[in-house]
Amino acid sequence: MKHAVTYELIKEDKRTRARRGVIHTPHGDIQTPVFMPVGTQASVKAMRPEEVRDMGAEIILSNTYHLYLRPGQEIVRQAGGLHKFMNWQRAILTDSGGFQVFSLGALRRITEEGVRFRSHIDGSEHFITPEKSIEIQNCLGSDIMMAFDECAPYPADRAYVKNSLERTTRWLYRCRDYHQDWERQSLFGIMQGGMYKDLRKQSAEEIVALDLPGYAIGGLSVGEPKELMLDILDDCVLLLPADKPRYLMGVGTPDYLFEGVERGLDMFDCVLPTRIARHGMAMTSHGRVNIKNARYEKDFTPLDPECDCYTCRNYSRAYLRHLFKSGEMLSSMLLSHHNLHFLINMMKNIRQAIEDDCFTEYKHEFYGKYGKF
Amino acid sequence: MKHAVTYELIKEDKRTRARRGVIHTPHGDIQTPVFMPVGTQASVKAMRPEEVRDMGAEIILSNTYHLYLRPGQEIVRQAGGLHKFMNWQRAILTDSGGFQVFSLGALRRITEEGVRFRSHIDGSEHFITPEKSIEIQNCLGSDIMMAFDECAPYPADRAYVKNSLERTTRWLYRCRDYHQDWERQSLFGIMQGGMYKDLRKQSAEEIVALDLPGYAIGGLSVGEPKELMLDILDDCVLLLPADKPRYLMGVGTPDYLFEGVERGLDMFDCVLPTRIARHGMAMTSHGRVNIKNARYEKDFTPLDPECDCYTCRNYSRAYLRHLFKSGEMLSSMLLSHHNLHFLINMMKNIRQAIEDDCFTEYKHEFYGKYGKF
Repeated sequence: MKHAVTYELIKEDKRTRARRGVIHTPHGDIQTPVFMPVGTQASVKAMRPEEVRDMGAEIILSNTYHLYLRPGQEIVRQAGGLHKFMNWQRAILTDSGGFQVFSLGALRRITEEGVRFRSHIDGSEHFITPEKSIEIQNCLGSDIMMAFDECAPYPADRAYVKNSLERTTRWLYRCRDYHQDWERQSLFGIMQGGMYKDLRKQSAEEIVALDLPGYAIGGLSVGEPKELMLDILDDCVLLLPADKPRYLMGVGTPDYLFEGVERGLDMFDCVLPTRIARHGMAMTSHGRVNIKNARYEKDFTPLDPECDCYTCRNYSRAYLRHLFKSGEMLSSMLLSHHNLHFLINMMKNIRQAIEDDCFTEYKHEFYGKYGKF
Repeated sequence: MKHAVTYELIKEDKRTRARRGVIHTPHGDIQTPVFMPVGTQASVKAMRPEEVRDMGAEIILSNTYHLYLRPGQEIVRQAGGLHKFMNWQRAILTDSGGFQVFSLGALRRITEEGVRFRSHIDGSEHFITPEKSIEIQNCLGSDIMMAFDECAPYPADRAYVKNSLERTTRWLYRCRDYHQDWERQSLFGIMQGGMYKDLRKQSAEEIVALDLPGYAIGGLSVGEPKELMLDILDDCVLLLPADKPRYLMGVGTPDYLFEGVERGLDMFDCVLPTRIARHGMAMTSHGRVNIKNARYEKDFTPLDPECDCYTCRNYSRAYLRHLFKSGEMLSSMLLSHHNLHFLINMMKNIRQAIEDDCFTEYKHEFYGKYGKF
């Protein structure tokens, strides 16, 4: 079977598991390791797609749950697919809707068949099965589709997690069987198993058996301590095949990206950069900046003196603070731009460092300047 | 005295009072008639300044009242002036704060000395005099400053309006006397007089006597019927000198722009295009479009099929509707862009039509297609 998405390894770090690669997709190549900006509702918030492209993003993520509810996958299909609908010509990854549906808590009920839930928008009742998730993602036309899984909460007891991951495996088979056009869209499986290493192993063995074009690690960074998360992650990566992309879901602070890369992960996504931007927070080479702070009132220097993004080239902290305090949309636009540029540029530096055999040095340098995460 | 701002007449229409000119300013030339986008708080809402520039805007308006309260004129001055603070290299006109202060209603009290008022932001008490208004505008560094005036409400009795316009004249003298650097910034006087033609004449004679570099017509489009407004406007224009720019304040619907141009006005401003954009409304060559309307759910055509702006080249009505319904900022960004482009492009066509001796034909063609205003 010819796959839409394939992974090519370029170089492995000598001292860590960090690796430099390329993911080939029907909508262009993706240099890895990569951070994927999130466009939940078919828009990377407060950004024009050309801005996202021009800062070097080669793939974005969008959300099946949100687009299913609004505007509905049929409208996106009729528009010519999500790429055309939202004016984004590069690669798109869609999640399965599983994570959002399970996050609804009291509003959803899980059975072997699927998940019944109420819309967070209007309370209407819906039923999503693995087949339905793939059907929606087929309409969206993303390059990478994610399997419909359950992300177990933290903490959760062993029996719950085991039961959950085994159902996730059965659902993965159903996703695989339902999907037809593998040359157009690739399906990635998701490893679960909570904080139980033996269950992680069981999950990995079950999903790797399907020989899918890529695999993700789900159910981490869900509230557990960082040390526990990294300990589990250490094990998880080794359970996944080296010739496929490895995706750590929902992770986006600079330190988690470095730790993930160091352990051999290739793909990351998070709403963090655009979300904190809307709250007046910026990531800079010297740590976080809260632009609301009174100390920036008469600070006419750029947000990040080491950054060459549009925001830092053209505006001062004093102006950005004024915009935020005045409730101007331009505040979100400029801070979102900077934060996304910051992470994308950081990943570019990480890739270069791996190529130049100095990933560990770059990590230490970055950590030293960034300070507390 | 050498003035910062001068007017050059290029051509007069043969059949109407419409005229084609250029306003020279320290921050570049402005082709007239011109529509000025409004950047109330040092930002044209939901727009990057380069977007505003690239669609052809040669001047924007900003608000003294708002910038005085936040961030404060001293911060803008220290930033190097408003142009630098907000990253806008072309011309800027600042209003005097008078209109906003008088709009505060119960929150303000007028004396001969000035206006005492409470901030709409935090209720703090402030006192603005004509001298203070010029001092603030000197700090902002706009190319065109407006005199501190009272815009009488509609309806208002004759005695009130007469008293108000005479105080406005006295305030204009104080503004004129306080301002020093006329080569850097020009002061425009504002004609008042409500709906009373003899008072309009009185106001005009009093302010024209000062031989200022430009004049505005204030106190129109404040709730009076359109016929009355146009009737008063007919008279007003003839009372102002032909060798100075004439500015009709706060007017921005397409029909008012055409009627204003036809009567010999050169400058217009209004928050309308960006404000209605944030409410999902667009101005198109075939009239207004309410993007919220269900009929656009599966409409994959551009917002305005005759428009070549960024929004119309890249997005469908279905997508714009989706963005609005989903509360995405990109909705305001794209609709604001389109609406501003629409008015700026319309003014460009008007200028060309005057040059080509077909202003009246262009007006009829536009009205025929646009439909009800």
